[in-house]
Amino acid sequence: MCASKVAEGKQRGWIIPIGGAEEKENAPQILNRFVQLAGGRQADIVVIPTASQMRSTGPRYERIFGELGAARVTALDFDTRRDCDEPGRLERLQQATGIFFTGGNQLRLGTLIGGTPIAKAVRVMNAAGVPVAGTSAGAAFISEHMIAFGDEGSTPIAGSVRLAAGLGLTNRFIIDQHFRQRDRLGRLLTALAYNPFAVGIGLDEDTAAFIAPDNTVHVEGSGGITVVDAAEVQFSSMDTVNEGRPVCLLGVKLHILTQGATFNLHTRLADAGVLHEPKR
Amino acid sequence: MCASKVAEGKQRGWIIPIGGAEEKENAPQILNRFVQLAGGRQADIVVIPTASQMRSTGPRYERIFGELGAARVTALDFDTRRDCDEPGRLERLQQATGIFFTGGNQLRLGTLIGGTPIAKAVRVMNAAGVPVAGTSAGAAFISEHMIAFGDEGSTPIAGSVRLAAGLGLTNRFIIDQHFRQRDRLGRLLTALAYNPFAVGIGLDEDTAAFIAPDNTVHVEGSGGITVVDAAEVQFSSMDTVNEGRPVCLLGVKLHILTQGATFNLHTRLADAGVLHEPKR
Repeated sequence: MCASKVAEGKQRGWIIPIGGAEEKENAPQILNRFVQLAGGRQADIVVIPTASQMRSTGPRYERIFGELGAARVTALDFDTRRDCDEPGRLERLQQATGIFFTGGNQLRLGTLIGGTPIAKAVRVMNAAGVPVAGTSAGAAFISEHMIAFGDEGSTPIAGSVRLAAGLGLTNRFIIDQHFRQRDRLGRLLTALAYNPFAVGIGLDEDTAAFIAPDNTVHVEGSGGITVVDAAEVQFSSMDTVNEGRPVCLLGVKLHILTQGATFNLHTRLADAGVLHEPKR
Repeated sequence: MCASKVAEGKQRGWIIPIGGAEEKENAPQILNRFVQLAGGRQADIVVIPTASQMRSTGPRYERIFGELGAARVTALDFDTRRDCDEPGRLERLQQATGIFFTGGNQLRLGTLIGGTPIAKAVRVMNAAGVPVAGTSAGAAFISEHMIAFGDEGSTPIAGSVRLAAGLGLTNRFIIDQHFRQRDRLGRLLTALAYNPFAVGIGLDEDTAAFIAPDNTVHVEGSGGITVVDAAEVQFSSMDTVNEGRPVCLLGVKLHILTQGATFNLHTRLADAGVLHEPKR
């Protein structure tokens, strides 16, 4: 499930993981920015509510995106893997100018959609420029390595996190959501202690990482984004430590980004952005 | 309340903050190491149970340290500031070869002992080589800057922490305790965002930082120590952000130490220590 290749001269679409519990009714800035990226008044949005088992989830986002001005919104649900082979639904998906995964249980997304033509189509479309967003479980799912579940707490404990394969739009980062609200730094650190190549992105609720085609992370929303950069880790005891015991991990770099700040996934440099300019 | 000056040719005593809930009955390695540093079979330990309002706290540690082989143990309580002026108690304190602050409420320690001859005597004695330990509230109290109270959660929020002046054995670090168990990274980051000069030391329960006279932090116990080094922070929005809002903080360095690992408060270098050697 590697990311689809971006055609020469083209740019991949935005990738937009949201930390869950995003504002939906009163000036929903995250959802609105997504609609704008999907084309604003020309936007054709497909909502995939498969993570959720509540019947109201799809229709609710249909209404919200409609009210935000999208030209067309369709909730496409997939209750079985066979649903993902249905040509009609695939065709509808392929018309979209923006794709949105709702919250729920990320294991439903992996088990129902993973490895199907739908998953492949989303990767191909994103590589061709279509923005893909996901909130909560939907956010966890979009990367190559997905946190399936784990324990709470701010320090890393061996065995405190289970990784699974996600949708695979990129493998540059691992997402964790409801970050501050559910105290998940420890499990994100644990995930990175296995292999520090990826960047950890911890999303507070009502906070989104808008990841541009050039791999710059922009912050939108009321909370913060915790960026965990383990590239320069000098030591990890992950290979020797027993399950349930704390992991020794030296030299992790941490950035907490708020709106206006950016982080470049290529150069791994953070920038406070407009926060620098007091006169703004 | 600056740290007392260490006389030429002398070394200050060990400083030993403990994260709370340390093992007390079954091979209590943290408390035992403290007794050994205080002189082992020659140890004369004074326990200060002032943070606690339970009558049993002092006698309990008297019994434990006695069982661990200390020659003499006395619980000295201070219920009023006037108690701290009493020559008899001061004299008893000054005989000690090890001083131990129990848990409870760190504000009781600040309000009852802060600025009294007892506080001064502890600083002078530590500067002259006497080890000083504190668990939970007692750990928070021993540094110059003490976290009085704050909110839970792993990301920094403006106003989420209240600092107060502590005992002042050193100003090199700020302690937070019950670290993993109560998810306190956010408030420790907030404390450092005000002024990154100090090192943040987050202590899990049943885990102690044994800080040697040369300012090397050694880990003892079953959990981890989270060292937050903000010295190279490239940006902090603490001066402009509103109360209750997340703080932008770029370039924090994080080390999670487990037993065997060390951190040098001078050089700010972490070392995995014996963890390096698989054959140990």
